[in-house]
Amino acid sequence: MRLLAKSSRDRVSSLGETGLIAAIRRWLGGASPAPPFGIGDDCAVFGASGRRRQLLTVDPVVYGVHIDDRVSPREAGSKLLKRNLSDVAAMGGRPRAAVVALALDGRVAVDWIGEFYRGIARESRRHAVPIVGGDIATLPGGALVATLTLVGEAPGRVLTRKGSRAGDGIYVTGLLGRSLQTGHHHRFQPRLAQGQWLARRSAVRAMMDLSDGLAKDIGALASPGIRPCLSPSLLPRRAGATLREALCDGEDYELVFSLSAGADAGAFERNWRRAFPRIRLTRIGSFVARGNPSAPDEIDPDQYLGYEHFKST
Amino acid sequence: MRLLAKSSRDRVSSLGETGLIAAIRRWLGGASPAPPFGIGDDCAVFGASGRRRQLLTVDPVVYGVHIDDRVSPREAGSKLLKRNLSDVAAMGGRPRAAVVALALDGRVAVDWIGEFYRGIARESRRHAVPIVGGDIATLPGGALVATLTLVGEAPGRVLTRKGSRAGDGIYVTGLLGRSLQTGHHHRFQPRLAQGQWLARRSAVRAMMDLSDGLAKDIGALASPGIRPCLSPSLLPRRAGATLREALCDGEDYELVFSLSAGADAGAFERNWRRAFPRIRLTRIGSFVARGNPSAPDEIDPDQYLGYEHFKST
Repeated sequence: MRLLAKSSRDRVSSLGETGLIAAIRRWLGGASPAPPFGIGDDCAVFGASGRRRQLLTVDPVVYGVHIDDRVSPREAGSKLLKRNLSDVAAMGGRPRAAVVALALDGRVAVDWIGEFYRGIARESRRHAVPIVGGDIATLPGGALVATLTLVGEAPGRVLTRKGSRAGDGIYVTGLLGRSLQTGHHHRFQPRLAQGQWLARRSAVRAMMDLSDGLAKDIGALASPGIRPCLSPSLLPRRAGATLREALCDGEDYELVFSLSAGADAGAFERNWRRAFPRIRLTRIGSFVARGNPSAPDEIDPDQYLGYEHFKST
Repeated sequence: MRLLAKSSRDRVSSLGETGLIAAIRRWLGGASPAPPFGIGDDCAVFGASGRRRQLLTVDPVVYGVHIDDRVSPREAGSKLLKRNLSDVAAMGGRPRAAVVALALDGRVAVDWIGEFYRGIARESRRHAVPIVGGDIATLPGGALVATLTLVGEAPGRVLTRKGSRAGDGIYVTGLLGRSLQTGHHHRFQPRLAQGQWLARRSAVRAMMDLSDGLAKDIGALASPGIRPCLSPSLLPRRAGATLREALCDGEDYELVFSLSAGADAGAFERNWRRAFPRIRLTRIGSFVARGNPSAPDEIDPDQYLGYEHFKST
């Protein structure tokens, strides 16, 4: 069987990213458990009951897609580890060990790769997560794919994407939009301490990190029968970011979570400011029952498209 | 900084695979612990003491390097998981969970990817190792890189590559050579049960799996001050394989290990045949002190080159 399809309707680009992921779950069938024990959350959760829960996540950087010559190789290496750390943060976990698989063209500059690994090493030391192994392989065609897999553990509760209910408040950390233009996409700090702090609070029901843009990602935080009701005026935008940029740009690497309607939101927010005085926390709306009429200025996430792999191919 | 180097002496191909791995260890510095807790064994070992040891390994398949149109996509997917299972087998471990990161051109055929994942799923069910997550990303240029990371655990002792002494016997499972020509490279069964059986025997000192060819790999099983003394007539060759093919072809995915000189080799071999009557076990030589004179027909591994990434670029 040929790798490349002749007809465009037989190509993976015809499925799009969401369609391809759905197809992969079908193809794997019983080999892939339901989330959070399988595909569908920021990390997969595994480990026998009674033991501390383990987390597993994988994210690549592909040259020409996630990074290019405008990003220094040191920042690219740093970004590779931090993307994965952000996924562990999103479950309230802490990182334990990582491996890096590198596929690259033999013409790649030794100096570039050296700087790339020094960038990984810098974040590795900062977050005390050792790089315990890896693999190198040839990839012809001038390309580079570096894939980092991170193992973490959840000290207490594993905070998944599921569990939000009608009436819950929706919160986001930091600022949204213009991540690529401002360099935030490689300068960000993964919200590890914040994720662990949030997982310890039972009023926090569900959480995820923002990688493809709020408009696309927020759907994963909703449950059947509820929808997010977001206020455009409340979105914490980065300087100069339009509403569309705040909703669609992606690579924010901030946490978005739901807070129980029954919680004392004022006390919660005060405790946050005491714990993290320099990290903004914003209530951007709430979950409402699907049947509820829309508010006049409510954001319709379907009107905004987040980043999707394969969409332009 | 540019990804590709203009001058050939500035390219990673000038280092070769071994040189690049050594450089990566330097660049990572303190971010990478010593083996078996870091780079340098079949799996990395991690986990707090007092708890069961965890194993972590990663291996990719790159289209055009590890697989091509002569291998069916189902066999390619199967091979991806089995390559990693072989690494866990080589430490005496058992597999627990895997993630798959796929970077691919949007023109790749949906049918090809479907068969590829069905191949992964088949081995996943056979070895009871769930596929718990993954990632998909765009890779322009007609290429495909699939990277699988496997977490395992060691029920008892972790059998590393280190610990062989002068006088120890050297054993290999199965047959060597002509793996690509015969389809063994995708039809092999990882030696998981055998690896666990060997790890339970304290007379087995050190072990690894054969992926780059015995001549290249055996060096990693030696300790300072000893060298392998291998007999050409004893090598278990696949039908039609020359001595050079048995030593250099690679992709054998068999276990090679050392047995203490003080062990009752006859009893050990009888126990093996009772446990695994259909899997050949061959004593191919022994480790001797480096100062010892060479036997007349002894194999000099340095005369045979195993597979090395980047060697031809």
